Amino acid sequence: MIVLHHLKNSRSTRIVWMLEELKVPYEIKVYDRVDGRAPPAYTKLSPLGKSPIVVDDGVTYIESAAILEHLVRKYGPSFKPSEEDVAELEKYELWMHFSEASLMPFIWASHVLDLSVNMTPIFFRYIVRQFVNGIKSKYLSKETFLNLDYIDNHLASNEYFAGEQFTAADPQMCFPIFAAQRDYLSQKPYKNIKRWMRVVSDRPACRIAAEKVEDNTLTLFSDVERYSHPPTPPPEQVRSDE
Amino acid sequence: MIVLHHLKNSRSTRIVWMLEELKVPYEIKVYDRVDGRAPPAYTKLSPLGKSPIVVDDGVTYIESAAILEHLVRKYGPSFKPSEEDVAELEKYELWMHFSEASLMPFIWASHVLDLSVNMTPIFFRYIVRQFVNGIKSKYLSKETFLNLDYIDNHLASNEYFAGEQFTAADPQMCFPIFAAQRDYLSQKPYKNIKRWMRVVSDRPACRIAAEKVEDNTLTLFSDVERYSHPPTPPPEQVRSDE
Repeated sequence: MIVLHHLKNSRSTRIVWMLEELKVPYEIKVYDRVDGRAPPAYTKLSPLGKSPIVVDDGVTYIESAAILEHLVRKYGPSFKPSEEDVAELEKYELWMHFSEASLMPFIWASHVLDLSVNMTPIFFRYIVRQFVNGIKSKYLSKETFLNLDYIDNHLASNEYFAGEQFTAADPQMCFPIFAAQRDYLSQKPYKNIKRWMRVVSDRPACRIAAEKVEDNTLTLFSDVERYSHPPTPPPEQVRSDE
Repeated sequence: MIVLHHLKNSRSTRIVWMLEELKVPYEIKVYDRVDGRAPPAYTKLSPLGKSPIVVDDGVTYIESAAILEHLVRKYGPSFKPSEEDVAELEKYELWMHFSEASLMPFIWASHVLDLSVNMTPIFFRYIVRQFVNGIKSKYLSKETFLNLDYIDNHLASNEYFAGEQFTAADPQMCFPIFAAQRDYLSQKPYKNIKRWMRVVSDRPACRIAAEKVEDNTLTLFSDVERYSHPPTPPPEQVRSDE
């Protein structure tokens, strides 16, 4: 029996989505965040206390991509290109790694810095905000846009990340793309990324997962129109004093 | 023919090491850093301009782990556990991902913040340094130590990362461990990590790679005694005014 320990608004949503694609029975235990962080009941589930955590037949699995590899191997090999399709398999491998190794660190670091500024004593906040804005504009945002350009270019000639077939690389890529929506995807057209978001979030498994996770991660992910470019503010947001 | 575009002092050292393990002919083109960064001749080699970059039979490969997967598939499948050895294969997958997705972001973010502080106008530097020290002590360093504890515990019952055999997961893990040496490995015993460092850096392929890369990455990696705990300062470093 598979048990998914699901921390709300976390990388664990990609696992819910994959489990729904696999159509395999599983139990989901949902954990609310406390002050934005994982509660003690969650952190003590594994040595690192990070989401996602899956227990399958008594064995604990951590690290999103390693969990996806395990699930696909055991329950749905068709969600990974075979060794015979080397070109697709190598695309799959690239994006399984790229998601958290290349793209996510830039988005995560920006988020951590923003949170940290808000916790700084107000007297120093202006200076610290200038410092953080400098790192973001000169480095983190620049690299994030470069990565998104690269992804958009890839999706111009690939229906899904690994080519013509939906694979585990698609849920693996969903989290950084979800995280990039507000600050990055709304700034440039990225029509291929948004086309992919529409296609994958329209899959029944993604819609069922969005209901199950009890948070905004997949709901917002599927709300791609909100991040169309150029942004069209709804009438109630247009105020003369803004 | 394989061409490795090697940026000095970068993640590319793990690829040199792997190529030496594979005993496959390859050409290495070495690029010096300019002001600590990759030179234009390097960044224009691929859309993201990040190291490592491998060109094999005219196809360009990026992303360390994806490059390792390609090399192992084509030139040395014995460096990856087979589908029959699921326990080892799942360890391999965990550490192939853990290296850059879990451990490296914390070490990298600390490094970026330290560099950024040093580029801040001197008038604001004290406040910014306090801010950065706060993020490091409350979050980044704490998580790095937690990750290293987890790795040390794994290596207590595993000779190599994937179990009893040396695999591509070992070069993949070498970079964050190299990057953690000065600030983290010297602070705690980590006897299993240091045992592993001694064992792998004593491999002929690692020693040949250390000579080829023309930088300090693998040389320092093999200099594990320097980071023994508690640190024993050499006599010339013991000065009465320190």
